[in-house]
Amino acid sequence: MNVNHRQISRKDFNLLYGRLNNRGRWGDADERGTLNYITPDKVVAAAALVKSGRSISMSIPIDKTAGPDNAHPAIHYMAQLHEDAEAGFATDFLGMQFHGDCHTHIDALCHISYGGLLYNGKPAASVTSAGAGRMDVTAFAEGVIGRGVLIDAARHRGVKWLEPGEAVTAAEIEAIEESSGVRLGEGDIMLFRTGQYRRRLEKGPWNVGAGGEGRAGLDPYSLLLLHERKVAAFLPEGDGEVAPSYVEGLDSPIHVLQVAAMGMLCADSLQLEELAAACVEENRYEFLVCVAPLRLPGGTGCPFNPIAVF
Amino acid sequence: MNVNHRQISRKDFNLLYGRLNNRGRWGDADERGTLNYITPDKVVAAAALVKSGRSISMSIPIDKTAGPDNAHPAIHYMAQLHEDAEAGFATDFLGMQFHGDCHTHIDALCHISYGGLLYNGKPAASVTSAGAGRMDVTAFAEGVIGRGVLIDAARHRGVKWLEPGEAVTAAEIEAIEESSGVRLGEGDIMLFRTGQYRRRLEKGPWNVGAGGEGRAGLDPYSLLLLHERKVAAFLPEGDGEVAPSYVEGLDSPIHVLQVAAMGMLCADSLQLEELAAACVEENRYEFLVCVAPLRLPGGTGCPFNPIAVF
Amino acid sequence: MNVNHRQISRKDFNLLYGRLNNRGRWGDADERGTLNYITPDKVVAAAALVKSGRSISMSIPIDKTAGPDNAHPAIHYMAQLHEDAEAGFATDFLGMQFHGDCHTHIDALCHISYGGLLYNGKPAASVTSAGAGRMDVTAFAEGVIGRGVLIDAARHRGVKWLEPGEAVTAAEIEAIEESSGVRLGEGDIMLFRTGQYRRRLEKGPWNVGAGGEGRAGLDPYSLLLLHERKVAAFLPEGDGEVAPSYVEGLDSPIHVLQVAAMGMLCADSLQLEELAAACVEENRYEFLVCVAPLRLPGGTGCPFNPIAVF
Amino acid sequence: MNVNHRQISRKDFNLLYGRLNNRGRWGDADERGTLNYITPDKVVAAAALVKSGRSISMSIPIDKTAGPDNAHPAIHYMAQLHEDAEAGFATDFLGMQFHGDCHTHIDALCHISYGGLLYNGKPAASVTSAGAGRMDVTAFAEGVIGRGVLIDAARHRGVKWLEPGEAVTAAEIEAIEESSGVRLGEGDIMLFRTGQYRRRLEKGPWNVGAGGEGRAGLDPYSLLLLHERKVAAFLPEGDGEVAPSYVEGLDSPIHVLQVAAMGMLCADSLQLEELAAACVEENRYEFLVCVAPLRLPGGTGCPFNPIAVF
Repeated sequence: MNVNHRQISRKDFNLLYGRLNNRGRWGDADERGTLNYITPDKVVAAAALVKSGRSISMSIPIDKTAGPDNAHPAIHYMAQLHEDAEAGFATDFLGMQFHGDCHTHIDALCHISYGGLLYNGKPAASVTSAGAGRMDVTAFAEGVIGRGVLIDAARHRGVKWLEPGEAVTAAEIEAIEESSGVRLGEGDIMLFRTGQYRRRLEKGPWNVGAGGEGRAGLDPYSLLLLHERKVAAFLPEGDGEVAPSYVEGLDSPIHVLQVAAMGMLCADSLQLEELAAACVEENRYEFLVCVAPLRLPGGTGCPFNPIAVF
Repeated sequence: MNVNHRQISRKDFNLLYGRLNNRGRWGDADERGTLNYITPDKVVAAAALVKSGRSISMSIPIDKTAGPDNAHPAIHYMAQLHEDAEAGFATDFLGMQFHGDCHTHIDALCHISYGGLLYNGKPAASVTSAGAGRMDVTAFAEGVIGRGVLIDAARHRGVKWLEPGEAVTAAEIEAIEESSGVRLGEGDIMLFRTGQYRRRLEKGPWNVGAGGEGRAGLDPYSLLLLHERKVAAFLPEGDGEVAPSYVEGLDSPIHVLQVAAMGMLCADSLQLEELAAACVEENRYEFLVCVAPLRLPGGTGCPFNPIAVF
Repeated sequence: MNVNHRQISRKDFNLLYGRLNNRGRWGDADERGTLNYITPDKVVAAAALVKSGRSISMSIPIDKTAGPDNAHPAIHYMAQLHEDAEAGFATDFLGMQFHGDCHTHIDALCHISYGGLLYNGKPAASVTSAGAGRMDVTAFAEGVIGRGVLIDAARHRGVKWLEPGEAVTAAEIEAIEESSGVRLGEGDIMLFRTGQYRRRLEKGPWNVGAGGEGRAGLDPYSLLLLHERKVAAFLPEGDGEVAPSYVEGLDSPIHVLQVAAMGMLCADSLQLEELAAACVEENRYEFLVCVAPLRLPGGTGCPFNPIAVF
Repeated sequence: MNVNHRQISRKDFNLLYGRLNNRGRWGDADERGTLNYITPDKVVAAAALVKSGRSISMSIPIDKTAGPDNAHPAIHYMAQLHEDAEAGFATDFLGMQFHGDCHTHIDALCHISYGGLLYNGKPAASVTSAGAGRMDVTAFAEGVIGRGVLIDAARHRGVKWLEPGEAVTAAEIEAIEESSGVRLGEGDIMLFRTGQYRRRLEKGPWNVGAGGEGRAGLDPYSLLLLHERKVAAFLPEGDGEVAPSYVEGLDSPIHVLQVAAMGMLCADSLQLEELAAACVEENRYEFLVCVAPLRLPGGTGCPFNPIAVF
């Protein structure tokens, strides 16, 4: 697979940003962005996909180990054990800087700014040391229940995983859809599998930063397809980015476009191994998805465990 | 309402414990307890309850403020702001001792022991400073998707909230079922509303400890009803306990019986105000419930945001 | 004692700020402020005060309990116990938002700004989410070793503690000096006792915030005395402030004047009960003081345990 | 330098343990161990060493970066910035699992057990999830003020640093003393330099665990010298251990002997580069040392910044 991408100039990126920009689409006060596509009828239709009653976790186990790809290991301490108690209560403390490369987490719309603006033209400065004054993760508090569609690029290519630097284009997404017998539509939740988690399991942690090995992800122009199809949320393995980036001067163009321009609920670092196997076994690539973000006032996201139900 | 309960001796409590004990019911290695009641067909049936597409959060906003009822305020810090960045990424850190009286959280089966034993006869000493070696919260990792049934004791009594010390008996649960046109059955998730959260909103934090005002909850013998009906999970406002306890020498008999004897997934400190209003509006007391526990290895529980879908 | 203070207008406060301002006194790049007064000969002279070899802690035990005066209880968890180990190593985790009313801590010079400026005219915006870029607590890393002088206002007044709202003036400091046979001089570390900690021990936690009972502390004009005498550091019980403040529109005028104008190392919430008793027993009010700030890059202060040696 | 050490059998280790054991020496209730050697006259004599007034930090800057040798990076977040405030207060949160290979910290006597016993024959089980019930770090709360003596093995050998696996024997300590013109005596605080910190600065982080490169430290029998001389405290670069260990089945024999048998205040991971340079410039290897442990109830140690004063 060619990883010698044509560079995208900042000028062209900005044109793309403009085409994807949903500012004002749901009113000036909107804080839910593309989740607006998930109308009640979409929820009802998604629930109707539950036929076998099988549920699947799409989360990586919370990682407490510092490593080349985990600069922010979760801290987890027992606060109380059952020591000598007739009726014992064991308790614990969990701390996470959850926006890390190894923690399955949600990005709230306040998480990312471009040119000083958040989604819907709101000032980035509204996020202060006191937390996000706008578009924090509580904007998603009622949960995201909808139709999930797995776009399994690794399976489509017949590889265990995409190699760092590789990009998936709109055309490839369409080819995957065709071979899977499924089509992303309005209000859908896109699960995007590159095999990155399997690579980590088999080859161990890797460096993902500036001097690291890079990541496989989406071609920035593929977002035009998601925009046109009115996709509501994006849940990838890894973070959906190609690294090194081939957009001039921007490390994370996908995040910028999805979150700041489109107002799309994104997540990072899912684990789609179990889901991919289940899709094969169930012979379908659509299912109910349940996302239940923590109700964290001011939060730029949260750790979570997205569930697929067949 | 009479709060002068007949005391339950420890001997009688132990007899009750024995009647409720599910040890061995699903095999010696079982770590999921009453979740075994939620068979795939129950999941499918629960999904069929989604008719209006409305979803509701049943979580209290994460509370960062120390107070008389919050000895363990969540800590939440911004790790990075959008400062001066062309493309900015705001991130944060969340830390929680989540088994607190003000944090909506799940109790894993390792959370509680009685007489040195966890559910299924496993040693309490298997929970060490390294975490729970058995029955940690990852035993629930695939999520809990099932039929929720609201037992709204406050509404049934025509009060804003039950007063501290009051208990709800099996007979009252049956009366509530009858007036609500719903019946707890095998694999159901019981939502139990006492109005405690509303009381907190209106009257402010209160003391819940030894010298505090107490709480309203379940009568211990009511668990025989849940046992017989094969209820799978219990999600209450508050923690389901009556305080002061009227079981000899035990502060939290409900937890002990549910978690250690029955192996029941329990939660604490839900917020059922929105759900109660929705049930009235939707004119039904059953709905789909989605519980998505964090995949925390060794964890005795986790914060969560349970979602109801009508 | 009169607590009906004459209000200080902001205009007068600003004039006082100007008189106390040490900007440029030790050069434009200085980050140590009044610690510059502690020249090597002062250190040698201070060490010569050690005659009986008795050392005293001036720290409150780290407080892990949330209370009316402790919105930020320290979190302290055991990370490992000696469980079953032939050679065991017990370890723990300590977390603190140490600028709290109950934690004995140092204020670095970056901690406080006035009119957008830190000490020495540096921009407050140099403190970002990444920490303090200037005048963090590491500017004090080599430790503060000097002569300590106890100004014991409670003892001088013959009371257990000063009442909330009471202020100590320059004249009273001079009277205390005279009765104690000691005089604050260049490079000295001022220990300031109001009896606040004893009050807490005897009467329990109290509210210190907006609606709380208030605190006893220094009259703002008393700082002219400290300035003239070239005092190097200020270590009080409480935080040295009178509450409610009688400076127009400013809650913490003492901190603003000491830290932002004078560049003085300040601390909060010392415990001077043991020191006060030792001064009486040793019959002197001067002694060696050792302050050893944590070497925390970017930190606005740190928890510490100041030691007096007689 | 030979690193092919003669293995020490567990039987021989236990004999050594017995010879070093201070159990009962200062009474059955003693919790201060060898600090008892620092009598008031020793404090006075140590203060008399202050002649030039120069003070030196012996702490590594607190390390927030996860790395091969830092599995527990400190977490440090800004709680509040000076945002838009006329009078601004920037605050932060610091969290540390301080017993790590990169954090300068104190080991309390409860930190280490051998054969189920802490120092003075107290049960290891007295350390519970609630913290240490005995011999926590508050036993050192009044501070440690005494004579420091630098044993600079790297300088004595004429190397930048000792290589992993190398051991310093009693004979070498005596040779270092002789060449330095100083002699460890009763109540002294031993600073032990291997050059490990310089190695880290020049060669970067290294692996210190089971599969890592190892460390240079003390030969276990050298502790007989410290015991005989009545050394009060041991403050090394690294942790004083030779790795791999050459004691049968024990990774950290030095810690076990010093802390559990001798009851000696130990520290880990000092930075003695500045001290070593100062000793050369001052042409003496003795000085005042100030250790001011945090007053952390139940703590097995604490981060600290030891200060040397010439």
